[in-house]
Amino acid sequence: MKPWGGRFTKETDARVERFTASLPFDKRLARDDIRGSKAHCRMLVSTGIISSTEGEAILKGLDKIEEEIETGSFPFLLSLEDIHMNIEARLIQLIGHIGGKLHTARSRNDQVALDLHLYVKRETEIVMGLIKDLQQVLIKRSEEGLDVIMPGYTHLQRAQPVLLAHHLLAYFWMLERDKSRFADCLKRADQMPLGAGALAGTGFPIDREVVAKELGFSSLYENSLDAVSDRDFVVEFISDAALLMIHLSRLSEEIILWSSKEFGFVTLDDAFTTGSSIMPQKKNPDVAELARAKTGRVYGALIGILTVLKGLPLAYNKDLQEDKEGLFDTVDTIKDILSLFADMLETMTINQDKMREAVYNDYACATDLADFLVRKDIPFREAHAIVGKIVLYALENNKLLHELHEDELIRFHPALTLKNVRALLNPYNSVNARRVRGGTSASAVKKQLRMARKLLEGN
Amino acid sequence: MKPWGGRFTKETDARVERFTASLPFDKRLARDDIRGSKAHCRMLVSTGIISSTEGEAILKGLDKIEEEIETGSFPFLLSLEDIHMNIEARLIQLIGHIGGKLHTARSRNDQVALDLHLYVKRETEIVMGLIKDLQQVLIKRSEEGLDVIMPGYTHLQRAQPVLLAHHLLAYFWMLERDKSRFADCLKRADQMPLGAGALAGTGFPIDREVVAKELGFSSLYENSLDAVSDRDFVVEFISDAALLMIHLSRLSEEIILWSSKEFGFVTLDDAFTTGSSIMPQKKNPDVAELARAKTGRVYGALIGILTVLKGLPLAYNKDLQEDKEGLFDTVDTIKDILSLFADMLETMTINQDKMREAVYNDYACATDLADFLVRKDIPFREAHAIVGKIVLYALENNKLLHELHEDELIRFHPALTLKNVRALLNPYNSVNARRVRGGTSASAVKKQLRMARKLLEGN
Amino acid sequence: MKPWGGRFTKETDARVERFTASLPFDKRLARDDIRGSKAHCRMLVSTGIISSTEGEAILKGLDKIEEEIETGSFPFLLSLEDIHMNIEARLIQLIGHIGGKLHTARSRNDQVALDLHLYVKRETEIVMGLIKDLQQVLIKRSEEGLDVIMPGYTHLQRAQPVLLAHHLLAYFWMLERDKSRFADCLKRADQMPLGAGALAGTGFPIDREVVAKELGFSSLYENSLDAVSDRDFVVEFISDAALLMIHLSRLSEEIILWSSKEFGFVTLDDAFTTGSSIMPQKKNPDVAELARAKTGRVYGALIGILTVLKGLPLAYNKDLQEDKEGLFDTVDTIKDILSLFADMLETMTINQDKMREAVYNDYACATDLADFLVRKDIPFREAHAIVGKIVLYALENNKLLHELHEDELIRFHPALTLKNVRALLNPYNSVNARRVRGGTSASAVKKQLRMARKLLEGN
Amino acid sequence: MKPWGGRFTKETDARVERFTASLPFDKRLARDDIRGSKAHCRMLVSTGIISSTEGEAILKGLDKIEEEIETGSFPFLLSLEDIHMNIEARLIQLIGHIGGKLHTARSRNDQVALDLHLYVKRETEIVMGLIKDLQQVLIKRSEEGLDVIMPGYTHLQRAQPVLLAHHLLAYFWMLERDKSRFADCLKRADQMPLGAGALAGTGFPIDREVVAKELGFSSLYENSLDAVSDRDFVVEFISDAALLMIHLSRLSEEIILWSSKEFGFVTLDDAFTTGSSIMPQKKNPDVAELARAKTGRVYGALIGILTVLKGLPLAYNKDLQEDKEGLFDTVDTIKDILSLFADMLETMTINQDKMREAVYNDYACATDLADFLVRKDIPFREAHAIVGKIVLYALENNKLLHELHEDELIRFHPALTLKNVRALLNPYNSVNARRVRGGTSASAVKKQLRMARKLLEGN
Repeated sequence: MKPWGGRFTKETDARVERFTASLPFDKRLARDDIRGSKAHCRMLVSTGIISSTEGEAILKGLDKIEEEIETGSFPFLLSLEDIHMNIEARLIQLIGHIGGKLHTARSRNDQVALDLHLYVKRETEIVMGLIKDLQQVLIKRSEEGLDVIMPGYTHLQRAQPVLLAHHLLAYFWMLERDKSRFADCLKRADQMPLGAGALAGTGFPIDREVVAKELGFSSLYENSLDAVSDRDFVVEFISDAALLMIHLSRLSEEIILWSSKEFGFVTLDDAFTTGSSIMPQKKNPDVAELARAKTGRVYGALIGILTVLKGLPLAYNKDLQEDKEGLFDTVDTIKDILSLFADMLETMTINQDKMREAVYNDYACATDLADFLVRKDIPFREAHAIVGKIVLYALENNKLLHELHEDELIRFHPALTLKNVRALLNPYNSVNARRVRGGTSASAVKKQLRMARKLLEGN
Repeated sequence: MKPWGGRFTKETDARVERFTASLPFDKRLARDDIRGSKAHCRMLVSTGIISSTEGEAILKGLDKIEEEIETGSFPFLLSLEDIHMNIEARLIQLIGHIGGKLHTARSRNDQVALDLHLYVKRETEIVMGLIKDLQQVLIKRSEEGLDVIMPGYTHLQRAQPVLLAHHLLAYFWMLERDKSRFADCLKRADQMPLGAGALAGTGFPIDREVVAKELGFSSLYENSLDAVSDRDFVVEFISDAALLMIHLSRLSEEIILWSSKEFGFVTLDDAFTTGSSIMPQKKNPDVAELARAKTGRVYGALIGILTVLKGLPLAYNKDLQEDKEGLFDTVDTIKDILSLFADMLETMTINQDKMREAVYNDYACATDLADFLVRKDIPFREAHAIVGKIVLYALENNKLLHELHEDELIRFHPALTLKNVRALLNPYNSVNARRVRGGTSASAVKKQLRMARKLLEGN
Repeated sequence: MKPWGGRFTKETDARVERFTASLPFDKRLARDDIRGSKAHCRMLVSTGIISSTEGEAILKGLDKIEEEIETGSFPFLLSLEDIHMNIEARLIQLIGHIGGKLHTARSRNDQVALDLHLYVKRETEIVMGLIKDLQQVLIKRSEEGLDVIMPGYTHLQRAQPVLLAHHLLAYFWMLERDKSRFADCLKRADQMPLGAGALAGTGFPIDREVVAKELGFSSLYENSLDAVSDRDFVVEFISDAALLMIHLSRLSEEIILWSSKEFGFVTLDDAFTTGSSIMPQKKNPDVAELARAKTGRVYGALIGILTVLKGLPLAYNKDLQEDKEGLFDTVDTIKDILSLFADMLETMTINQDKMREAVYNDYACATDLADFLVRKDIPFREAHAIVGKIVLYALENNKLLHELHEDELIRFHPALTLKNVRALLNPYNSVNARRVRGGTSASAVKKQLRMARKLLEGN
Repeated sequence: MKPWGGRFTKETDARVERFTASLPFDKRLARDDIRGSKAHCRMLVSTGIISSTEGEAILKGLDKIEEEIETGSFPFLLSLEDIHMNIEARLIQLIGHIGGKLHTARSRNDQVALDLHLYVKRETEIVMGLIKDLQQVLIKRSEEGLDVIMPGYTHLQRAQPVLLAHHLLAYFWMLERDKSRFADCLKRADQMPLGAGALAGTGFPIDREVVAKELGFSSLYENSLDAVSDRDFVVEFISDAALLMIHLSRLSEEIILWSSKEFGFVTLDDAFTTGSSIMPQKKNPDVAELARAKTGRVYGALIGILTVLKGLPLAYNKDLQEDKEGLFDTVDTIKDILSLFADMLETMTINQDKMREAVYNDYACATDLADFLVRKDIPFREAHAIVGKIVLYALENNKLLHELHEDELIRFHPALTLKNVRALLNPYNSVNARRVRGGTSASAVKKQLRMARKLLEGN
């Protein structure tokens, strides 16, 4: 018999039972549910709503259930719909009808909201820790890459030379913003819904502050209708995860490009690649590809929850049950990728020669040439046009800029003597000229690294 | 050892193994995989690529594996990545190294494409059958609803009276389009990829036509690169499912509205509703709510696969492994809902009195009044304005249109005598006036029903 | 001639010009662009990169351009691609080749990033102000609704009676979270990108802090690659807008439901509704419907930018140009709706009688009956079952709970005497029993209102 | 005064007017609207609902309006909400109150549906033509690329050599499926909604078949509620466009990769690239990048319309007005890209040497080596492992496969004599070995080309 069966004259259709049950996925909330129930129970005792004997029996029963779940002996029943009803029914089975008192002053609506808040809070903290771990690896590899030069790209065309350290640190800052977004999400998830009852609050003289305190919440929902129908924190978590996936997919794309024969900038460790069932020579960057692709499932989870919530009238609707699977999958996905990427980046070999060669074998210093002309008081736009023509001339003659003779250069502008130009065409000079804060020169990147390291230690 | 381990010097990281493995979900393709392998094997024999003794051994091994999977005794190994490698490894275990010959002239890339085609083809047919079942129920309920009058709504405001049968049949036509879209999808999924090898075709003298024929495909991929990288049929299936979900969510919304106390148009069977853990009087349309919400997961699956495929270079990329879970979930979701809705609609009680009352207690025939004036040669725009003023007057005097006295009516236009007007304000007359093809009159709806029934029998 | 035409031997195809031009939409950034250019110019002077005479000429030119744009006389040219090039070209036209010096130490990549930051910052503040305005209206209407009782719903079924004030305040808290999310977004948008150059920083001795200070930024991008390729703040703004739209669409749905004849809870002001071209009696809640629907375009804009950014390698790619239209449209959409909703809610008539009637004409107090039994020491689950049976009995006998006779009631439990039960079945008592913090009792809602008012004054 | 103002006592709020108006975007339907109105008018005459004199006056008025719109002299008024009301109001202005008769037996609900059907039908045909044009270019370039060899990639790793023609033709087949999907969409869009009135059909004795015939529709909506609330054809068009964008974004990605210095496979024509405002040497594949990015707006439009339609009750709701902008933008986007890509591909230079070099400078023929061993009766799995070890040995010794000496090779297997192996390691042999239908050999590709050409001529 269902816990709500009083007014019903017929059994639920078996397929309806299966269709509406959330047990297969909300099992994951078991420990949060028990934690919340214990706090609720203690408060029921402290406010005199139930006796302390009853409270003790309930707490003992919940301990037993916790153990059963951990050891795998808990008798899950799909017909009991969800984890909450499973635990409650088992409690009554274990300690008798007193178990039924646990649900006093509580509804499944505020109970499930509580569990989800507890879950999101603890997982957000784990995710923030994993982001930090990946940032550590980026800092470590950047320190090693302080004297490695590579092409900086725009439009996937070589643009200007940069330090590898500078390139890697760009990801540090993206992750720093991600972490800060998750911290803000946590702030808003940190609200205690219990006491909202089904939607209107409860008539029992409960003490919500005490429950919040025991469960580590720093504030309460101030409106019971909002408390049971709010899933903002789920949407916000998945939105933050989608942004994180943007960054991880960009990094994935670069690893895939860099591992290609054409770039050849890095070699992934064998432990982080896989082979082909048919082509014996293949070594594939599967982890990066799969991470890139998994962006899709996180975007999908986001659209899923946005779609569910659009246009729902207050307060609780069964639709809200669809808030969990996308969230759980997102949590698993980003935790896996963050943890794998830390190790994949740590064990990846940097092919410095290939990177350097790509810089030298190009027109990477054209901007520096234009900047030089600007310093000779030629407006930037004209300087740009002059150097454009030099590049065109060089291309047509199949030469690189440093392969041009003086007489070829000065045809475009008299100041372009070899004496003036030679140093400009050295990529290391180009890099080190960019000493501006946030720029790619060794000195600026060292400052950047110090700042990054400090930030990481500070939080 | 991995089947591709030759050139590798290190074991795959255990977390990488778990992260890249598709076994937990592609298990579902086991029967398709075996079916495809058998066809491939028979062709290898018939083309002389392997001997018939070898072929027989392989086929027997595959039979054994099929049995093991059905009985649950198959030893699945996550370290073997996917269902394909699991089956192949088991085959070699069972029949020795001859089992390794099955993979001749085949790659996992074309093999997995084949399996997915077989899966989509069989599931599409099942979905089309379930749509038809739901259409049958709609026809049945429409036949019963041929003399039930209800308000037709626009903007959720009562607009003009319609027959319940007419309203229900609107969904028949939506589903008819859905079925036709799935049929078109099936047409394009009906292409055989095997023989494409990893990406370039195979050098073995295979016969693709023979395999296609055995597996019931009516055409072949004509380009091997396309064959291994095409997932259009997955996108198209999920797109069609998303459109289907639009229709099912609209129907859900109406069932939820109609079940509300405020509308009261229908009463769902107890077997298709659930109660509240706290409010003893509640009876909730959970199935409809959940169906409405599950629109989100199908939209999410669509965005998922669209995101995965965007900007992927040819040919196979590991990203494509993310094509399955969203598809499988979509298949399960729409099959569940279609099947539940057929029964939910069949067992739902129609509260005809409530529907009729909602028509009578309103201004539903205002348009008919305007149309009458038009027939008196008043341009429609003016007629509309006159009736608008009558409605305003009635509202301000707290009356319905048929409660207005003749002297009140003729103030607005002399033709509006009770004699002229009385029949117009009878909603049944309003309904039956709309005899145009596709209109709501009993005669037109009967024709519509006949057409619908014929269509359903015809396919 | 294009500003970058040096190395090109052919003109751009005219359709390519139109296809790649952003001028039609980035015009909107004109004032931000000029503001940024002025700050850049002043810094070029203060660091001695250009002379103060040059600086003055440039500033004067920019003033002139600003005026031209405001008065509509600015000669926009699509062939100049974007607003930045249009302004620069016009500057050179107005003040001669000195105008070309403005682009010293700057690239379009960091310039466009700057403009977008300035835009997002100012629009976010406007949006936050509009949210506050809507919250004010909610507070005002809540104050009026402190003694209005209505059904609280779950599953769109009447669940427990609540105060209208309580219901309206639920939206106050949603909007409060929205505001806090936009404030967090602002925090992260408040980073100055200029100085990043094309991607690697600049070799000119610029002073980024000075520019940041003049433009009101509180921090700088610490990595030039990140500065030009970061669009997190755009994604975050649109994510926050999507969440806001969830709330506004839920409110829209309720307004649509409440305006229906079936609910009849509110009447929208004529100024905020529209009629039908054919049905003279119609009055439609178009604004609410359109707001609900516009959720789609905001979700679409979110998916748009998420799709654009997925898997992009560093640093700038032309893809990033697709960051603007969805953002601009989102800004317009939410500003329109927030502003219209404030007035629509302010002018909406509450039909208190209809709301009260809906409470009385139902089983709203069933939970209170169960709670009473719990206080008689019956475990909640049993109490729930007893009341469930009473409701079933009442339904079958076509009675409401307060219409049951004592002998009917005590059959279910001896404690259910009329003396005990009468007060419980008064909905006002039910409401006022829920005195818990965040509950629906008048006293709790008054506290809630005070807190809400205080929050609004405080920020 | 609004055309529906009769029952209203207040003017619409000016901002509401602007917010709810669709004129700014539905202007685009002007010609479809007039075309539909003319057909409707002729039918009103032929059925005797209006006189032929009235009909002629109306038709003449519509001609005049058409002319005004074409010449830009039509006085559009936002206060008249939409294109339909603008045209009708102008008609009455031009020909007097007889103009008001055009709206007889018609509502804006079925009128707007008709216009949208006409629009989608004509644009779908244009899109199909543009797809065909792009296919033509692919065929042309494939014919030129029949003897150009290049690496086929999986996981962006060089996998097996293929012909450029084969690679390009993969896109031919994707586009062929796209075209077939649009054709199927057209089939379902080809239904005439007029006569559905506001939702219930009309009481006037109209002839829907005659209207359908004049407007070139091959079928009618058989249910009036469905006719006014169906937007399936919009969703389906955008879904098909999203799939098309997958293909175009994949092609874009390849063009971007191939244009990079690292690949160097193609050089885009100057007319189809742009430069950098700061880096004089840059030549960027902007068109391909922007096309790739515009995938986002099409996905966004899809999510937009899916979101709008989810859970809408029947029949017409104002929400449906949000069906147009995303559709129009999608139409423009795909037409632009299809047309630009045809020219960009046609004018693109293929750098055959670079492609060939990429094949020779790799382990592209490893699979062929394994296949050879299979023919020596070694099970494929073992052969694969042997060749894997050879590749590993070659890599460690910094050699390519054809640089290995015989004594090095036979260490791995005695059959690997130079005599046996030499031909296998020639990539052209590898390509031409894949003679299977759909494979990459010259003979198979020629057959494929013939089939493609035939298909293109046939439709």
